[in-house]
Amino acid sequence: MTEPPSTAAISHEELQLAARNHAMPLEALRWDVTPIGLHYLLTHYDVPMLDPSAFRLEVDGHVERPLSLGIDDLRMRETVTSTVTMECAGNGRAGLAPRPVSQPWLLEAVGTGEWTGTPLRGLLADAGIRDGAVEVVFEGADRGVEGGEAQAYARSLPLADALAPEVLLAWGLNGHVLPPQHGFPLRLLVPGWYGMTSVKWLTRITVTTVPFTGYQNQESYRIRRDEDDPGVPVTRIAPRALMVPPGVPDFMTRRRFLPEGRVTVEGRAWSGRAPVVAVELGVDGEWIPARLERASGPFAWRRWTAEWDAAAGEHELSCRCRDEAGGEQPLEASWNVGGYANNAVQRVAVTVGGPA
Amino acid sequence: MTEPPSTAAISHEELQLAARNHAMPLEALRWDVTPIGLHYLLTHYDVPMLDPSAFRLEVDGHVERPLSLGIDDLRMRETVTSTVTMECAGNGRAGLAPRPVSQPWLLEAVGTGEWTGTPLRGLLADAGIRDGAVEVVFEGADRGVEGGEAQAYARSLPLADALAPEVLLAWGLNGHVLPPQHGFPLRLLVPGWYGMTSVKWLTRITVTTVPFTGYQNQESYRIRRDEDDPGVPVTRIAPRALMVPPGVPDFMTRRRFLPEGRVTVEGRAWSGRAPVVAVELGVDGEWIPARLERASGPFAWRRWTAEWDAAAGEHELSCRCRDEAGGEQPLEASWNVGGYANNAVQRVAVTVGGPA
Repeated sequence: MTEPPSTAAISHEELQLAARNHAMPLEALRWDVTPIGLHYLLTHYDVPMLDPSAFRLEVDGHVERPLSLGIDDLRMRETVTSTVTMECAGNGRAGLAPRPVSQPWLLEAVGTGEWTGTPLRGLLADAGIRDGAVEVVFEGADRGVEGGEAQAYARSLPLADALAPEVLLAWGLNGHVLPPQHGFPLRLLVPGWYGMTSVKWLTRITVTTVPFTGYQNQESYRIRRDEDDPGVPVTRIAPRALMVPPGVPDFMTRRRFLPEGRVTVEGRAWSGRAPVVAVELGVDGEWIPARLERASGPFAWRRWTAEWDAAAGEHELSCRCRDEAGGEQPLEASWNVGGYANNAVQRVAVTVGGPA
Repeated sequence: MTEPPSTAAISHEELQLAARNHAMPLEALRWDVTPIGLHYLLTHYDVPMLDPSAFRLEVDGHVERPLSLGIDDLRMRETVTSTVTMECAGNGRAGLAPRPVSQPWLLEAVGTGEWTGTPLRGLLADAGIRDGAVEVVFEGADRGVEGGEAQAYARSLPLADALAPEVLLAWGLNGHVLPPQHGFPLRLLVPGWYGMTSVKWLTRITVTTVPFTGYQNQESYRIRRDEDDPGVPVTRIAPRALMVPPGVPDFMTRRRFLPEGRVTVEGRAWSGRAPVVAVELGVDGEWIPARLERASGPFAWRRWTAEWDAAAGEHELSCRCRDEAGGEQPLEASWNVGGYANNAVQRVAVTVGGPA
């Protein structure tokens, strides 16, 4: 009943990426804050091993007073902790046909962290943004080759978005020092935006008077209909609901088995564009409303539950959400060259009354 | 120069497993103790969410005094911390041709933890092993379907191996409470053995008078020449050296680029059978000895380094180790049905003087 996301086989290069870049197993949707090690990870190049005592963050460009700060300087500033859901822009890519060749995410490139850091806008105010500034560029310590260009990972934000009060420079995750793979010792955190925005291993912040033309803004992370389309930038997270696949899995096929009877199906739903206001559980194509719980913050996912009287046989479960801005999830994926922002509904094949 | 491990394309089912089961990116070989979240993970079924206050460990079977213990009972016992390298028995599987269909590991299913717990043999002594006992069966709380059988994950050890002083019941990792994905609240840890032995989410220990015939011992985790071969059990970790791929990667191909000149190539080497006594770095097929550093414990990997004068052009680096028992790594993989214990040498394609 449920078809694999794509019938085309995965290449060796895609497998190399899938092995490096960790998805969040969907049963981890049970945790409101994703345990360290289960949050998704996408690393373009290598995880660098940085010495925090030698670390400096430079703030320069179109500012009155360029700054150079160590980690201790940052930790003495105003400190906040926010619960934020982050999702990779490529989540759902492997569900597209033809499948864009890159990190082949199925549906699990998501996670929620309790991030601790200092608001970016306070730092920018100290540096003094000069008239005529339009963007802020964030550069990480991770280097590699992409699209034939050697580069440090770098992304820009429009100035107004960089000044949003929720944007943090973070040094902590879930009450611990930031793990290396999440950007130790310092990362950007832009709540509501896809994860590529939240530059890890952050070492330089540059205020500019012209739009940034670096690879990750100009070439990558754009929604393009075809190779000739300049496209539009990938920005905020589209609405999505996911469920914990009920019952128990078959090791190899991951098909789910559960006994007959009433079962509570649970999951999480989020949108970076507006609060999630409704979730529905689909049972063999019929939609029933789910109960929604409060979120742990304006940028955190919401838990949802729905009761299902599971009768013996084969079933397909699905779920979808709607946000306050009217954003919904499509039943069928919308294709684009890079395979970004595919928020088509999740479908889970379930056998009720099977061997488990 | 370097060929992909297998030219056969990866199936959707293998991709589902690769997304769930986290490899350790090889640059994380730089850390002597693998940071939480970078250690490899192989979960047969789902990561369970267990309530530690309701948790009980039952010790039963062929013993004088069956025991039932909570986590606090265990924590009051003799407590030790050991640095232990763990590797999945299927590491290297994707390098076999034809590729056995299961979790498609390349080379990164490894990690080293500082595990805290109590020696198993003290607990077994308290329970009182009766004459005639031959094995100890360890059962986890994780359930699923495998080979058509509904089951809890369970594995046995011969009694003598279960009584080895290094075998622990562990509740801590790297100074933290055991993360859910590593077996919270309690797991078995059998240093030197492939990871399938170290049962996570451990809830029952049963001493038996007959060999265990459960799926994970009888059907899975055996070295078989063909489907009709009953095979021999997978036990201790075969010797392996891995390197941190030098230079920087191309995002998609993971090919490495570095400038001309002297470079220190580094990595780690381990064997569960005997101490590693030699490592060699291969440069375009010529082998040069590496320097070996001390291990953090008898079951932990050893760091190695070797200097290489990198000349412009295309090169293939490789590495291999030898243990005190004479165990070596083959240049070509040895095939078996389940794709276990493939410790053929790592090969890394490098471009010197490229775009980086």
